[in-house]
Amino acid sequence: MTVHLVGAGPGDPGLITVRGLELVRSCDALVYDVLVAQELVDEAPADALIVSREGLGQDEINRLLVELGRRGLEVVRLKGGDPFVFGRGGEEALALRDAGIPFTVVPGVSSIAAVPAAALIPVTHRGVSDKVTIVSGRGANGGEPDYATLAAAGGTLVLFMGLERLPRLCAGLIAGGLSPDTPAGIVSHGTLPDQVVATATLAGLPDAAADLESPALVVVGDVVAVGAAISEPHEASFRAFAQAAAALG
Amino acid sequence: MTVHLVGAGPGDPGLITVRGLELVRSCDALVYDVLVAQELVDEAPADALIVSREGLGQDEINRLLVELGRRGLEVVRLKGGDPFVFGRGGEEALALRDAGIPFTVVPGVSSIAAVPAAALIPVTHRGVSDKVTIVSGRGANGGEPDYATLAAAGGTLVLFMGLERLPRLCAGLIAGGLSPDTPAGIVSHGTLPDQVVATATLAGLPDAAADLESPALVVVGDVVAVGAAISEPHEASFRAFAQAAAALG
Repeated sequence: MTVHLVGAGPGDPGLITVRGLELVRSCDALVYDVLVAQELVDEAPADALIVSREGLGQDEINRLLVELGRRGLEVVRLKGGDPFVFGRGGEEALALRDAGIPFTVVPGVSSIAAVPAAALIPVTHRGVSDKVTIVSGRGANGGEPDYATLAAAGGTLVLFMGLERLPRLCAGLIAGGLSPDTPAGIVSHGTLPDQVVATATLAGLPDAAADLESPALVVVGDVVAVGAAISEPHEASFRAFAQAAAALG
Repeated sequence: MTVHLVGAGPGDPGLITVRGLELVRSCDALVYDVLVAQELVDEAPADALIVSREGLGQDEINRLLVELGRRGLEVVRLKGGDPFVFGRGGEEALALRDAGIPFTVVPGVSSIAAVPAAALIPVTHRGVSDKVTIVSGRGANGGEPDYATLAAAGGTLVLFMGLERLPRLCAGLIAGGLSPDTPAGIVSHGTLPDQVVATATLAGLPDAAADLESPALVVVGDVVAVGAAISEPHEASFRAFAQAAAALG
């Protein structure tokens, strides 16, 4: 009776960890996020209990995990990305702790670096950036982020956000002190076959991203220019990566 | 003739991705970092060319990858953590691009979140931290980091560093404006069976970490207290994770 909080990775089902896939394949019950690849859900045993978290609030999920654990089942809670990076895995872990249910945490490939990588943008690069700041694109209380602090951070900014907030974000960072000419990129459906990448200056990013869909991830900083240098003559290789949702062995 | 830049994950061999392991198992040549688990190196085909990067400079590695690619081999460059997070994968990608060698990037589980997770510390937690700043613990030119900016960042700080720099780091962050009582943790050999975790206040961390070994990762911020709450009654579960270097299936 253990609940495993497992990161499914950024989207491409081939990017789950070996240990995570082993746990999915041997679980009694699977509780999965909406953004988790169907290919991974299909890896659960035929007689496993399969529950989508769609429509469930965080408190309901916590109670469900505790209840399944109490029944003595091996439970996999399959979460998009990494459980402990903007994943609320800590809340689930605390609920399990409070209930005395044994649990483990199996890290996953987080979107924060994998999605830029899928666009061939390295979030760090020697001589260009040795610092990465990751924010949710939404302030602590649901309001605006502290743009001045973000603009002063230096290095690379990575922002999880809804696309409808992109114009305010770019304007806020420029008002906060970043140059309008700072290289910026946005990746929609990162690591999936329908991935779309747009790059521009920070000032031009909202127009460049007009046709993109959520979920999307924004990268701001000179590493975006490094990514452009890496990817320019490599369209074929880039497509090969984007289509790398390999059949699971 | 493709060179795959593959993230091996943070240490535990079970944390490589499914796609990464597939590539290792089918490669013609494997060039691996010193910190990569031997279990993963052993997964390469018996007739594959196996090269440790030990003793090779970055330029030599770049040339080696280009040369192996030119020979028409399927090459896996197996790197600790994620290739594009403090991994110099961008430099290798640029060298391959310049030489016209096709390549792909396969992201890995980075230590930046997985090592804190192995100590049950979530790097974000609702109401506690919605921001993560990652630095190498060494300034851009090899000097001291900008402590005042780091101290003002808010949220969670994650620092890759040599342990010999820990006293200066903690003193610098306090001089930069962080409270000496800020919760702080350090994880040595994260995700491996010999993992050791020490937690303390920021002021007390150097003493608490006196017996730890490199490589180590430092986490500073209130999420360390969340991690303490999660892990306290869960010694057994924590050990189960630390020992989870599961045999590869």
